[in-house]
Amino acid sequence: MRAVDIIQKKRDNKKLSDKEMEFLLNGYLAGNIPDYQMSAFLMAVYFNDMAKEELLKFTMLMRDSGDVIKFDEINRFLVDKHSTGGVGDKVTAVLSPILSALGMGNVKLSGKGLGHTGGTIDKFESIEGFKFSTAKDELVKIANKTGIGLMGYSDKIVPLDKKLYSLRDVTATVPSIPLIASSIMSKKLAIHSDVIILDVKVGDGAFMKNLEQAEKLAQRMIEIGKGAGRKVRVVLSNMDEPLGHAVGNANEIIEAIEFLKGNYADDLKEVVYTIVSLALMEKSEIRELEEGKEKIDEVIKNGSALKILGEFIEASGGNKELVNNYDLLPKAKSVMEIFSKKEGYVKKIKTEKIGKAAMIIGAGRAKKGDEIDHSVGINIFKKVGEKITGNEKIAEIYYNNNENVEEAKNMILEAFVLTGEKVEKQKAVLKII
Amino acid sequence: MRAVDIIQKKRDNKKLSDKEMEFLLNGYLAGNIPDYQMSAFLMAVYFNDMAKEELLKFTMLMRDSGDVIKFDEINRFLVDKHSTGGVGDKVTAVLSPILSALGMGNVKLSGKGLGHTGGTIDKFESIEGFKFSTAKDELVKIANKTGIGLMGYSDKIVPLDKKLYSLRDVTATVPSIPLIASSIMSKKLAIHSDVIILDVKVGDGAFMKNLEQAEKLAQRMIEIGKGAGRKVRVVLSNMDEPLGHAVGNANEIIEAIEFLKGNYADDLKEVVYTIVSLALMEKSEIRELEEGKEKIDEVIKNGSALKILGEFIEASGGNKELVNNYDLLPKAKSVMEIFSKKEGYVKKIKTEKIGKAAMIIGAGRAKKGDEIDHSVGINIFKKVGEKITGNEKIAEIYYNNNENVEEAKNMILEAFVLTGEKVEKQKAVLKII
Repeated sequence: MRAVDIIQKKRDNKKLSDKEMEFLLNGYLAGNIPDYQMSAFLMAVYFNDMAKEELLKFTMLMRDSGDVIKFDEINRFLVDKHSTGGVGDKVTAVLSPILSALGMGNVKLSGKGLGHTGGTIDKFESIEGFKFSTAKDELVKIANKTGIGLMGYSDKIVPLDKKLYSLRDVTATVPSIPLIASSIMSKKLAIHSDVIILDVKVGDGAFMKNLEQAEKLAQRMIEIGKGAGRKVRVVLSNMDEPLGHAVGNANEIIEAIEFLKGNYADDLKEVVYTIVSLALMEKSEIRELEEGKEKIDEVIKNGSALKILGEFIEASGGNKELVNNYDLLPKAKSVMEIFSKKEGYVKKIKTEKIGKAAMIIGAGRAKKGDEIDHSVGINIFKKVGEKITGNEKIAEIYYNNNENVEEAKNMILEAFVLTGEKVEKQKAVLKII
Repeated sequence: MRAVDIIQKKRDNKKLSDKEMEFLLNGYLAGNIPDYQMSAFLMAVYFNDMAKEELLKFTMLMRDSGDVIKFDEINRFLVDKHSTGGVGDKVTAVLSPILSALGMGNVKLSGKGLGHTGGTIDKFESIEGFKFSTAKDELVKIANKTGIGLMGYSDKIVPLDKKLYSLRDVTATVPSIPLIASSIMSKKLAIHSDVIILDVKVGDGAFMKNLEQAEKLAQRMIEIGKGAGRKVRVVLSNMDEPLGHAVGNANEIIEAIEFLKGNYADDLKEVVYTIVSLALMEKSEIRELEEGKEKIDEVIKNGSALKILGEFIEASGGNKELVNNYDLLPKAKSVMEIFSKKEGYVKKIKTEKIGKAAMIIGAGRAKKGDEIDHSVGINIFKKVGEKITGNEKIAEIYYNNNENVEEAKNMILEAFVLTGEKVEKQKAVLKII
C-alpha cells in the first residue's frame, strides 16, 4: 500500500477502505507518512468530502490514537456538552453547576481559545490558583465531589487529532465539515458519557456562517455518534451577536456567576435552559423540553447551583469566596467607555469583529501558545433589537495596555450596525436536532 | 504575507496576485515554505485550476529559478520540439538530423523515461560512450557542428520545477493540466529558440487520455508561450498504439536509423513529417504543410540526415559506425517470439500495457533513479487496422532476465484487442494547433 495511491483515490472521489484509512492515519501518527502527503490528502478531503463509513473509520482511528476514558467511579448521568466555539460563550461555566445541582454530571475535555473565539480553560484560569487537571484520578475526585469534570487536553488523548489539527491550521484545511466533525467527535468518543450534547454555533462570530452549513456539520456528528453507538443531540445556536454581555475571561466568569444568582441575558438563558432540558429529557426525567424550566429555576433560586460552582472552584485550586467577591478576580487597570455616535435600532452586531477586538487587547490568542491577559475584556450593553438613543454607552473595554485599545474601540463601533426601523430580537436557539 | 492565506485563496478559487505567487514559489525554493504547505497548494490547484495570469507568473517564476540559456553562438533557425511522453516515441532521434539537414537546429532539454513512457536520454545512452552534456559550451560546440543540441537536465535549469515535480509525484498532483503546462513550458522558456513545437500525445499510452484534455493542455501551453512572447505550435498525436514498431531503447535507436534510410512505419513518418513541415513553415521556407514532404524526402534519399545523425553520435562520444553496424549497440541475450492465438483485425493496442511490459523487463523505470537495461525491449509487428491470421507472430521480446518475461508476454497478448470486422488504420496526427 502506498500513501500516494490513497491520496489519488480521495482526489478522484473514490471510497477508501478501512485498511487504507488505517494505513494512512496510523502511518501518519507513527511518522512513516510525512506531513506533505497528509496535507495533500486533507485538501482532497476538503474538496471531495468523506463517505459515511470513511468518516466513522477516520474518527475511530483518531479516538484510538490515545487513551479512551471511562468514568465508572462517577455515579451520575454523565453529559458531555461541547460548543463549536463562539464569542462570549460562557455556557460551560453556567451549565455545569446547574447540571450538577440537578443530579447529573458534566464530563468533558475543555479547550483554550484561539483567534476571535474564547475557551473554557482560559475563562476558569482567570481564577487565581485554578488548575485544569489532565489526570483521570484527579478529575474523578473533583467530579465525585462536585459533579463537574472538566478535563484539560493532554498528549494522551486523541494525539492524532492534535497532530492533524496543527497541520490543518497551516494548510488552509480547517474549515472542512468532515474534518471538523471528526475532530470534535474523536474527543467526545474518547470520553465516556451518557449523552453528547453539541452546541453548534451559527453566524458571523462562529465557524459555521450559516444554518445550512451548521446543519450539515450537526448531521455528520450525529452520524458518527450513531456509528459509534453513542447518543448525540445538537442545539444550533445563534452567533450573530455575542452570547450575553461579557467577552473576555474574568468578566465572563462574573457573568456566569451572576447568571447563577438569577441575573441573566436572555439569549444566554435560552441556550443554557435548552441544553439542560435536553439533558433532563435524555435522562428521562422530563418528557417535554418545557418541563425543564421549573427545575432549573429552582436550583438557581435555592442557590444550590451557585454553591456547586464555588465548590468546583475550590476543588480546582481557587478561592470559592470569589462568587461573592469579584475583587478576588484579576482586574484591568483602565476602562474605556464607548458611546454610540449614531441613533437607531441594533440590526446586527458583527460578532467576529467583537471577538477580534477582545483578542487584540489581550483577551485572546492570535496564534497557539500566545499568552493572554485574563483581566481584560469587553462588555457590551446593547443587543440586537435594542434601541440606542444618541450618545448612549454601548460598550466598555477593560484594558491594561494602551497599544491597541483605540483600534479595538473602532472595531466595536464598526461592529454595531444600526437602522432606523424597529428590529426583532434574535432567537438564541435556532434549531434542536 | 503568509503561505496559509495564499493556500486559502487558491482553495476558495480566488485569483492570486503576482506578489503572492512570488512569495509562495520563491519562498518554497528558498526552503522557507515547507513541502506540506506546497502540497496543499498544489492539490487546491488540481481542483481549482489557475487563471491565465497566475499560470504565466507561476511558469515565469519556475523559469527564473535557474539559468536561462540563449544560444547566440548557433547561427540557425532554432526549433525546440518537445513531446509529452509516449510509448515507442523515438521522434527526437529521427527529427533532429532531418531538421539539421534542412538547415535548422534542434535545441532542447531532453529527459529520462519514467513509468510506461520512455525518454530520449535513455534511448541515446544505449550507445556506448554517448554522453548528454549539461554544459552550455559543450552543447554549443556539438550543435554548431551538427545542428543538434540535446541537453541533459541539470540542477541549474528550472530547479524549482524539479523540486515541485518530486513533490507532485508523491502527493497525487501530477495530472493537473496547469501544473503539467507550467512544468513543460518553464523548461521551454528557459532555452531560447525560434519556435517551440509541442507534440502532445493523446490516448491510452499517454498522460492525456482523450482529445479534449489534450487540447486543453495545448491551449494552456500556447497561452503561456504567448504571454512570454514566444511562438508555440502544437501537434496532437495518437498514442492509442505504440509509435512505430520498437519499444525500448537500443531497438528504438535502430528504428530511428532505419527511418533515415527510408524504412519507416507510417505513423512515425506522419508525425515526423508534420513537425518538420511545421518548422519549415515557421521559418517561412514553405507556405503549406504539404510542401515539406519533398524537402524531407530529399534529405533522407541523399543520406544527409543519416550522415548528421552519425556525426551527432560521434560528437557526443559514441561510435558513428553504428548507423551501419547495429552490432555496436548492446544486444539482449534472449528473444521470445509472441504469436497470436486469435485471428482478426487489430482494433486497439492497449499502449500503456505495452509500455509497462517494456518497463518490467528492464527497459523502463518503475521509479526515478532505477537502473535500466538499454539492450532489452519489445518490437511489435502488427498495428491497428492490420489483419492477423491464425498463429501469426505479433511481437518479440528481447530480454536478459527470465524473471518477468512471461508476465510481459501475457501483457502484450492482452494489449492486442482483435475484432472480426475490418478496422480503419489510425491517423497518427490528430490535430495541429
